[in-house]
Amino acid sequence: MEYKHIFDYAREVDTILIVNGGENAIDKNFFYLTQVKSGVFEGSMLIVKPTEIKILTSILEEQAAKETGLEVLAIHKKKEIEKILQSELKNVDVVGLNYEAITLSDYTELSKMIPDKRFVDVSVSIQEARRIKTPGELSKLREAAKIASESFEAVIGRIKEGMKETELASELVYQMLRHGASEPSFSSIIAFGSNSSLPHYSPGDRKLKKNDYVLMDFGALYERYCSDVTRTLVFGKASEEQKEIYSVVKEAQENSMNAIRANINGKDVDKIARDIIDSTKYKDTFIHSLGHGLGMNVHDHPALSPGFDLPLKENMVVTVEPGIYVPGFGGVRIEDDVIVKKDGFEKITTATRDLIEIS
Amino acid sequence: MEYKHIFDYAREVDTILIVNGGENAIDKNFFYLTQVKSGVFEGSMLIVKPTEIKILTSILEEQAAKETGLEVLAIHKKKEIEKILQSELKNVDVVGLNYEAITLSDYTELSKMIPDKRFVDVSVSIQEARRIKTPGELSKLREAAKIASESFEAVIGRIKEGMKETELASELVYQMLRHGASEPSFSSIIAFGSNSSLPHYSPGDRKLKKNDYVLMDFGALYERYCSDVTRTLVFGKASEEQKEIYSVVKEAQENSMNAIRANINGKDVDKIARDIIDSTKYKDTFIHSLGHGLGMNVHDHPALSPGFDLPLKENMVVTVEPGIYVPGFGGVRIEDDVIVKKDGFEKITTATRDLIEIS
Repeated sequence: MEYKHIFDYAREVDTILIVNGGENAIDKNFFYLTQVKSGVFEGSMLIVKPTEIKILTSILEEQAAKETGLEVLAIHKKKEIEKILQSELKNVDVVGLNYEAITLSDYTELSKMIPDKRFVDVSVSIQEARRIKTPGELSKLREAAKIASESFEAVIGRIKEGMKETELASELVYQMLRHGASEPSFSSIIAFGSNSSLPHYSPGDRKLKKNDYVLMDFGALYERYCSDVTRTLVFGKASEEQKEIYSVVKEAQENSMNAIRANINGKDVDKIARDIIDSTKYKDTFIHSLGHGLGMNVHDHPALSPGFDLPLKENMVVTVEPGIYVPGFGGVRIEDDVIVKKDGFEKITTATRDLIEIS
Repeated sequence: MEYKHIFDYAREVDTILIVNGGENAIDKNFFYLTQVKSGVFEGSMLIVKPTEIKILTSILEEQAAKETGLEVLAIHKKKEIEKILQSELKNVDVVGLNYEAITLSDYTELSKMIPDKRFVDVSVSIQEARRIKTPGELSKLREAAKIASESFEAVIGRIKEGMKETELASELVYQMLRHGASEPSFSSIIAFGSNSSLPHYSPGDRKLKKNDYVLMDFGALYERYCSDVTRTLVFGKASEEQKEIYSVVKEAQENSMNAIRANINGKDVDKIARDIIDSTKYKDTFIHSLGHGLGMNVHDHPALSPGFDLPLKENMVVTVEPGIYVPGFGGVRIEDDVIVKKDGFEKITTATRDLIEIS
């Protein structure tokens, strides 16, 4: 079974209970372990053992659940859950839980339903298992990256003077959906001019003017897997300063990306980019981490950051996204998605990184 | 201050700590209480007192946070949080937490940082406060409903034989973004033919054929507030059975909606629709609740369901969405969004509910 390797990491348990909460408390492990194609599964659970997975869900999602081929325990009323858990876990003493996803109220309720069990946090173990992608996951990530790259190229021709940031965001999302995304993997950041100096900006009514930076940070969701790409271009002819910032970021990105391979530590990759930026007059303007893992979550493990002192491993997937942010002037970020290989990396985003000037 | 009323509900505390987690553990109260326009605020907190709110966030989101006019405590490194919390809460014994949003791991970490505090669950109190919408919230909900309604009307002309469910989903999302949505409020359900019998279906490759039902369940997000609309139409001329199912659902929807006013219990509204459906040969095919609250969450409080034995109140906002689902044949759901008024209701979704036949 594909999911069985999680028990190689979570050795302390032989039963894991995955509790998928409401719309703000999703446990992606539910979708990772079942690979269920459709459905939201609010308030559903998985009983995971090395030999089998059972899906505990409402009759609303019973049919979608059954398509996984896994055993389904369909619930008509919420109060049936207690009896099912007691019976399914009757020979189990220790239950693994994902403390990073279960809410305190779901945990409290669970403790009342099965008061005789001891709970153990398996969040780190599952994360570790999920960092290394299977061939099936890599295919989905490649497709998500391809959709985003092609959508960027399709949208360049639609960038026009006077359009709002929100309009460009619509065009980009439309292209991603047309190219095969089920939805955007996150709310796109589209920032014109000086707004590009805010790394987490949300698009607004600002209209595109000549000589503005156009920063686009966006991604596609494909079969529940994410891509995450940033490109920054200039609408008009780039000024000397715009070119200089761009070239520093590009150099930082290329040099750090070229260092990626199995066994290099996340913090060492980050340092390569940071040292390049900090050796220029833009010292200290790179105010976030170099990159993050990518998978079912858009911010997944591992990290390329000053604090991540662990080696990358083959078939981890990370973003590489240095940036320079000059308040009041603007910012540049260039972001690609790469698969870590034994002796290098595979870049799965394909959109050009040369500075595009739209005239 | 607009948020002050939450302490009328959460009388047991005079300090609430809102912990906004990562992408799968969002606490919408963070956005409700700050009304911050842009930003994601992962790993950020609010220290809420009757007289003031302080935002504790990373320097990445400092600027967006400051635009709220609230005090901002900007953090460079995660370990600064402990010191800030200890100092800000030094005269506080009891801290209210939203147990429905905080993850078990964030809670564990918090307990270590401020071990001398007693925590109290204020999730129900805050929910109760949030059920009743302010005039500002109602305006946003009206706009979200208008965007969805207009987008539905704009997309009807684009429904064509042979198109995939996913293509119609793209067109609909595009229209919502063009009409002013920041994003869809949830992943649209677009189901053709017999797929419409699955209430939580995700769109796939199924191509539109003559005489198919076309079920569209979708919504817009406008300034972080949701709409949620369903329309079902027939591509071609409706068969007698298609018409009959539609007319039962429509009757159930109209009769239950017309009963909505302040002080009617949620379960009594549900019963009106359920009784109508159960008096026909489609008995027991209405396999979900009649409706749910709508706000910053697409599934919010209160509920119109058999188990919701509480009265509706003025300025609550709910969906009304009965459905009939016949496995193998198809399903019909009609869903509108309404504001509860003292003596009735205001329907804020405007798209026609007459059976549309596209020929």
